[in-house]
Amino acid sequence: MSKETTKYDLVVIGGGPAGYAAAIKAGQLGKKVACVEMERAGGTCLNWGCIPSKALLKSAELYQNMLHSEDFGFTTSEITIDFPKVMKRSRNVADQMAKGIEFLFKKNKVDYVKGKARIDKGNKVVVFEGTDKGKSLQADKILVATGCKARMIPGVEHDGDRIMTSRDALAMTEQPKSIVIIGAGAIGAEFAYFLNSLGTKVTLVEMLPKILPVEDADSSDAVARAFKKQGIDCRTDTKVEDIKATKTKVTMTLTKGSKSEKVEAEKVLVAIGVQANTEGLLGEGVSFDLDRNYIKTNDNYETSVKGVYAAGDIIGPPWLAHVATYEAIQAVRGMFSDHKPEKVTLFPGCTYCQPQVASIGKTEQKLKEEKVDYKVGKFPFTASGKAVAAAHSEGYVKVLVDSKYGEILGAHIVGSDATELIAEYGLAMKVEATAEEIHDTIHAHPTLSEALMEASAAVYGEAIHI
Amino acid sequence: MSKETTKYDLVVIGGGPAGYAAAIKAGQLGKKVACVEMERAGGTCLNWGCIPSKALLKSAELYQNMLHSEDFGFTTSEITIDFPKVMKRSRNVADQMAKGIEFLFKKNKVDYVKGKARIDKGNKVVVFEGTDKGKSLQADKILVATGCKARMIPGVEHDGDRIMTSRDALAMTEQPKSIVIIGAGAIGAEFAYFLNSLGTKVTLVEMLPKILPVEDADSSDAVARAFKKQGIDCRTDTKVEDIKATKTKVTMTLTKGSKSEKVEAEKVLVAIGVQANTEGLLGEGVSFDLDRNYIKTNDNYETSVKGVYAAGDIIGPPWLAHVATYEAIQAVRGMFSDHKPEKVTLFPGCTYCQPQVASIGKTEQKLKEEKVDYKVGKFPFTASGKAVAAAHSEGYVKVLVDSKYGEILGAHIVGSDATELIAEYGLAMKVEATAEEIHDTIHAHPTLSEALMEASAAVYGEAIHI
Repeated sequence: MSKETTKYDLVVIGGGPAGYAAAIKAGQLGKKVACVEMERAGGTCLNWGCIPSKALLKSAELYQNMLHSEDFGFTTSEITIDFPKVMKRSRNVADQMAKGIEFLFKKNKVDYVKGKARIDKGNKVVVFEGTDKGKSLQADKILVATGCKARMIPGVEHDGDRIMTSRDALAMTEQPKSIVIIGAGAIGAEFAYFLNSLGTKVTLVEMLPKILPVEDADSSDAVARAFKKQGIDCRTDTKVEDIKATKTKVTMTLTKGSKSEKVEAEKVLVAIGVQANTEGLLGEGVSFDLDRNYIKTNDNYETSVKGVYAAGDIIGPPWLAHVATYEAIQAVRGMFSDHKPEKVTLFPGCTYCQPQVASIGKTEQKLKEEKVDYKVGKFPFTASGKAVAAAHSEGYVKVLVDSKYGEILGAHIVGSDATELIAEYGLAMKVEATAEEIHDTIHAHPTLSEALMEASAAVYGEAIHI
Repeated sequence: MSKETTKYDLVVIGGGPAGYAAAIKAGQLGKKVACVEMERAGGTCLNWGCIPSKALLKSAELYQNMLHSEDFGFTTSEITIDFPKVMKRSRNVADQMAKGIEFLFKKNKVDYVKGKARIDKGNKVVVFEGTDKGKSLQADKILVATGCKARMIPGVEHDGDRIMTSRDALAMTEQPKSIVIIGAGAIGAEFAYFLNSLGTKVTLVEMLPKILPVEDADSSDAVARAFKKQGIDCRTDTKVEDIKATKTKVTMTLTKGSKSEKVEAEKVLVAIGVQANTEGLLGEGVSFDLDRNYIKTNDNYETSVKGVYAAGDIIGPPWLAHVATYEAIQAVRGMFSDHKPEKVTLFPGCTYCQPQVASIGKTEQKLKEEKVDYKVGKFPFTASGKAVAAAHSEGYVKVLVDSKYGEILGAHIVGSDATELIAEYGLAMKVEATAEEIHDTIHAHPTLSEALMEASAAVYGEAIHI
């Protein structure tokens, strides 16, 4: 590809779960497509988010299992943690997956352009920074999938060492002796579990009344209890102020109600949310309608600029990789076929600490707020033979069902395999299967998935094992 | 309860997955019910099958993970195996679950009668052996759920020590140095994985051309490859003859085609199938129509004797706990309500070695045999970010779809979490969701369950990550 203007059916800006999926999809449809990525194919999710963090959690889980291996019939000496090796493995996993995306680009004839892109007037995409600086791409259609980056607390200086975002934390080379994690959403909870499991003193601070605040209150409570037992210091309803980093530590003030406490730690991880990546995106005379900095799109994922579409984190919440991918594919299908793109209303959410938390649909607190007439079915893993055999009997399956029609309104799972189990309820809600139909489906014994059947039965008082 | 005749709405004979579930269900329906069990509530599955074996497999998996812990950043000394402790844990798990069933009997007002039962004329159940010997129960309806026990090779003397069934193997107190396992179905494969993982020299012998012979041929081949890599000596198309036990070993001849080989091992495990438990069941003048020793039932699970029903392994294949439970509950609902009982046509099958194997519906070889016009979607776990992050990238998801209507005809999963993942396809087939609907369902990222979505997409060449 020369540095002259090349013509494309689609230029995708951003190579994350929205961008790479869109580019591959367009390639599958036989379109001439380029994907411009300023760092590495796979985006934040694959390189600095979901994927490497799961590798770290795998190590943490193994370490915890090894600590308890005597219960399972094994004895060994003390276990030594090679923290750089733990981190290195997660980088290798990210590298391997990123190479996989680059392979898929080739396979699907996607031109992979390395650099930072700007949209100029007339649907022109110009690479203004990076390896392919100077390239100019003429696009019939453009998809903006630039995603988000971690948000910093206003007034706090992000130095990447003492005061970190999750991205910095994924690049740590030494295990901190202590850390304060600010924000107890999925990212905060996962790092809390990971670091605490390996022996770091963890304080997890949340401004709202519960950790994992978007989850069903039962899930939040169950994880809070588990975290406490694991030794994580959870501080809810707590504000953090006066964050100050020195060469050796960070000090700050935690305030709950009228009580303030000065605390210090080796590191601080700020995990309070994200902000849109729009820096440098718009050339002179180009502008989008925005909604709190996120790009506004219509039902076809088209922005206020004709021919320019957007999908993924950049169009706003819920900021989940799987939602981003879905949106991007819908957008592309809509661009190049008579497919009517769907907007996302139903999606699972997962937190991969132990016990894991997974959910889909509405929480019980939401149903109460909306004054919906609902029933609850709940089944604890203590009553599951598989869970007891595998020594993972923490947690439960909870399903919320419309009282009148048996429609599933939400499902919430806490437990070791929650993030996989939620898929069945996801399909059920998608195809509008009822709790009764799940109850009437033969589930393999012994599996944790039986708990989904039993919870569905419990809605009507028909569970066998409770 | 006195030793005189007591009247019941339902007397269940057998306290396994069929029997206990039937008794609990009848209790939930407000019926006066007794469950007669000659050993312990929970039956073979819970006491000497599915549940304790899963506890053993958990230990084996942990040991294997510990052996590779350096890859995950940990170093430790050599690991010592306390085999009696491994076994003891599995007994404890079984005990705990059996107590759970006893608790559920109390909760649901089920009379738990301990002994061996005989059906006498006039729907009378007499306990002729065991703790409650002499009790006589007058039953409005009887459900026979006596299940099956391991079948021995004709002419081979089962001594329970050198020559074992799976039940004996679950009671071993010492780890054998070597074992020949005869029969490579689920039970044989699970014991092969378990013992080989802990260092026993395992020879797995199968008369048919492939191990796991009821599974899709791809699954059999994948596990055969994995087993070979793990060091299990798999012998297919092989007959075992001249089995002779001495005080210290067992010798036998393995014959494949024209080649015979004399082999010896410390133990032999016979896992070639099961036979019906009907010994002593029928009093004078009572007889059922049988089909190859299994009790024949009509569409309502009623036997040829009016008022006497049967469910579970005793009515024949597939001899699976979850099928037994389903049948028993259907039978009970049919007895006491206007519910029309369903017979089982669709059920998952699971093998819990590593990699696990799970399946539902038809195999590819079956579809070929039936000349069905089908399409295949396959997705390897090497392309799954979660699988790579968790270091479980062995295996794949395969779905078989009707070419014309997109109906799912079968699904076959090989991999570390296969037995849980199959549940989603199970629901899909139950509610007749299509592969396209699974593809169109947002699955959480990163999870292994995404592979089910991708395999469904692959049917139509629309998978993103391959």
